[in-house]
Amino acid sequence: MTTINFFEKKSLNIKKLFPKKKFNKDILVKNVKPLNFAQRGDLTFFESIKYKSLAKKTKASFCITTKKLVNFLPNQVEKIVVENVFYELANLLKKIYPKADIDFPDLSLKTPSKKVYPGVKFGNNVLVGKKVIIGKNSVIGSNTIIEQNVLIGKNCIIGSGAILKNLIMKNNVVIQDGCKIGQKGFGFIQNKIKNIKFPHIGHVLIEDDAEIASGCTIDRGSVGITKIGKNTYIDNQVHIAHNVHIGDNCMIAGQVGFAGSSIIGDNVSIGGQAGISGHLKIGNNVKIGGGSGVVQDVEDNKIVMGYPAVSLRDFLRKKKDE
Amino acid sequence: MTTINFFEKKSLNIKKLFPKKKFNKDILVKNVKPLNFAQRGDLTFFESIKYKSLAKKTKASFCITTKKLVNFLPNQVEKIVVENVFYELANLLKKIYPKADIDFPDLSLKTPSKKVYPGVKFGNNVLVGKKVIIGKNSVIGSNTIIEQNVLIGKNCIIGSGAILKNLIMKNNVVIQDGCKIGQKGFGFIQNKIKNIKFPHIGHVLIEDDAEIASGCTIDRGSVGITKIGKNTYIDNQVHIAHNVHIGDNCMIAGQVGFAGSSIIGDNVSIGGQAGISGHLKIGNNVKIGGGSGVVQDVEDNKIVMGYPAVSLRDFLRKKKDE
Amino acid sequence: MTTINFFEKKSLNIKKLFPKKKFNKDILVKNVKPLNFAQRGDLTFFESIKYKSLAKKTKASFCITTKKLVNFLPNQVEKIVVENVFYELANLLKKIYPKADIDFPDLSLKTPSKKVYPGVKFGNNVLVGKKVIIGKNSVIGSNTIIEQNVLIGKNCIIGSGAILKNLIMKNNVVIQDGCKIGQKGFGFIQNKIKNIKFPHIGHVLIEDDAEIASGCTIDRGSVGITKIGKNTYIDNQVHIAHNVHIGDNCMIAGQVGFAGSSIIGDNVSIGGQAGISGHLKIGNNVKIGGGSGVVQDVEDNKIVMGYPAVSLRDFLRKKKDE
Repeated sequence: MTTINFFEKKSLNIKKLFPKKKFNKDILVKNVKPLNFAQRGDLTFFESIKYKSLAKKTKASFCITTKKLVNFLPNQVEKIVVENVFYELANLLKKIYPKADIDFPDLSLKTPSKKVYPGVKFGNNVLVGKKVIIGKNSVIGSNTIIEQNVLIGKNCIIGSGAILKNLIMKNNVVIQDGCKIGQKGFGFIQNKIKNIKFPHIGHVLIEDDAEIASGCTIDRGSVGITKIGKNTYIDNQVHIAHNVHIGDNCMIAGQVGFAGSSIIGDNVSIGGQAGISGHLKIGNNVKIGGGSGVVQDVEDNKIVMGYPAVSLRDFLRKKKDE
Repeated sequence: MTTINFFEKKSLNIKKLFPKKKFNKDILVKNVKPLNFAQRGDLTFFESIKYKSLAKKTKASFCITTKKLVNFLPNQVEKIVVENVFYELANLLKKIYPKADIDFPDLSLKTPSKKVYPGVKFGNNVLVGKKVIIGKNSVIGSNTIIEQNVLIGKNCIIGSGAILKNLIMKNNVVIQDGCKIGQKGFGFIQNKIKNIKFPHIGHVLIEDDAEIASGCTIDRGSVGITKIGKNTYIDNQVHIAHNVHIGDNCMIAGQVGFAGSSIIGDNVSIGGQAGISGHLKIGNNVKIGGGSGVVQDVEDNKIVMGYPAVSLRDFLRKKKDE
Repeated sequence: MTTINFFEKKSLNIKKLFPKKKFNKDILVKNVKPLNFAQRGDLTFFESIKYKSLAKKTKASFCITTKKLVNFLPNQVEKIVVENVFYELANLLKKIYPKADIDFPDLSLKTPSKKVYPGVKFGNNVLVGKKVIIGKNSVIGSNTIIEQNVLIGKNCIIGSGAILKNLIMKNNVVIQDGCKIGQKGFGFIQNKIKNIKFPHIGHVLIEDDAEIASGCTIDRGSVGITKIGKNTYIDNQVHIAHNVHIGDNCMIAGQVGFAGSSIIGDNVSIGGQAGISGHLKIGNNVKIGGGSGVVQDVEDNKIVMGYPAVSLRDFLRKKKDE
């Protein structure tokens, strides 16, 4: 993961963040990262037994977790035991990244100057924020908005009316008209008076040669990233929630939806209007039929179909029985 | 319901509107409203036995209805008995509100002046129509269009590229990028030569603390309103048809679709890609599984799933039997 | 089909295009068209036994096909026998139409002049490309982009924030806010290093009196056209893929999706969120229930429902059995 700071960050020591807890050392919290990306000085979180193997290997200095899970964590990690991991995490993130829980529109946007972007072609009324980098031979369509800190590679074609933020895009990527990429995901702690908005400090990473068709929405990661792999093609009106990772060479047809945090392998093809539930692992070379609803992990090389999706063999057998 | 006039209204007496019918008095028709919102001087309509309890209590002065239903209406209501309620209603609305059947783009839009909106922050190229009110500390993203008569409360955050019309929005509401809110709903009388477009004279009401994610479409009410309740959060690419009422504290995941006129209770959660048919009543605290197709009313506190949606217990039993 | 050239075309002779093949005459390839639209001088393609009756009657001068299918073609057609029809076709199209495989944003857009469009009303910041024709009394909403060569008829109402390209629109058409029409479809030859983007040289044709609601995406045809029939109404967030033909007087509810190349008859009504697979033929007067997944042809006058969709009778019988 890159170290671009998409969000304003406060420098806060661990004791300031958790004044009631005891710590061996009162050091600065460098970053908040998922278990497998956290480094020394970082704070992480561990909320579900599902991630115990990642927890065992984490390099984080601090971890928010529950009484039940605390023993899976390595010795060197300082544990912060709480009742509700996400509630504490949301509060903590809000303190460190005070502006990541609402997408305040970027008010620093300007018409891009030819001097700053010598090899780039712009349509009319393009708006670009501070510290945006765009590679040579890229073309940006009219009315497109690129908010601050976005990185766009070489030879990229961005259509018209797109809205891009909190995004790192590699080379030769095509984004068609009207895509919304990098906005806050659908994460919050429910509360009947007023929900607590979960800060989303991550970004979206789109690898080389990917193509995203018109009207897609790709939310940025909450703590980690949302990723679209190399040479993966995505059709119109697809919705990709926060923290989803889609592998290389995938083919995602129109109106497919991905709930948060699912990991999709390489060479996966998904038919139109299929839905992938959250926190799933879909293997490599999987084929998912159009309109399916996938609610559990799928192993490599499987073909699944139906609602809920089952193996193609089971699906056909059931239909025959009816 | 508010009395803002989003649409140009002609002052017409009841006899002018229905020259072939007999009336006790020839008075001005004040408004056209649903059975339960109509007041004295208003005209209403009653087309289905489903609404008989509302019909019995209506305060309207006039009601378009059918021979079969006419006896459910109170004595003081002057009845206009017709063959096809919606056909007559469409014609009547077109006479009173001649510009509500097509969304003519607002040609009065201008760059908002800082004097008129002292405490509001605007991005670039924002366009605002006549008589728009925006509360203090609200922020409006670049390229967003706010058509005439829209009311926006305090501390609202509107993303970029949004298009808002015929809308009343309370305080602390968040609207993410690219939402289209307040446009005409999908209502018309089919006709093989040329359909009759049903005038939509209603608006959209979004209550305090609601959050609507990117790329959603919320159509305005036809005669009544479309409503999003307090502290309700709606994910990307959700489609909400005319006259839908969503309660408070609901959680609506990505790509969910609501057909017209359904009433959703409070604290309802709906999984991604679920569809809710038209004219349904979904109770409080209901949970609807992702991908479900709800085709009948759901009582309070139920969990439903499947296509068509049944109780979770029945859904699991069926899946086991297969 | 019209002869407007939406895409830059190279004049290439057949021997230059296929140097290794033998031909009776070395003539210019006039156009690349589907079997049933191709005329003398045109090149066509024939890849599936499904289209054998069209193949038998084609007037094309040249046809790319396979060994297995070659004998269905008329004598006068010069056959180009290949292993993979679409692979060869993609390469050929790229040679003749070098700019049709990626939607380069139109960089010739300008604010439309009142002199050029005397009877047309424009909102703010409308951008129009070269050789755009717009009929009298049409209204174009703010921030809408109309790329070069688009034809718009009389009395059309185009909402705000729409992006239109490669489009022929007849009279009295209504397009609501934020529609994306005429962009490249989801067609490519998969390749693990880098997919081959299939050039889309077609356009979109929208007939008289059609209405398209907010946020729809309609991809242009690959070789042929994508068509919306007369007086057909389409609700919000519908996705229509390349080469789909929708007949007259249809009613398509919200979030319906059409995969490529399906042909829909007249007077068809389709409920919300239904999906229609690719290359199907749906007859006249068909009714498709909301949420259905149609995976095979449907005869005239049928009512179908379910996933996969079956006749209404079978659907109800199955539900009863459960």
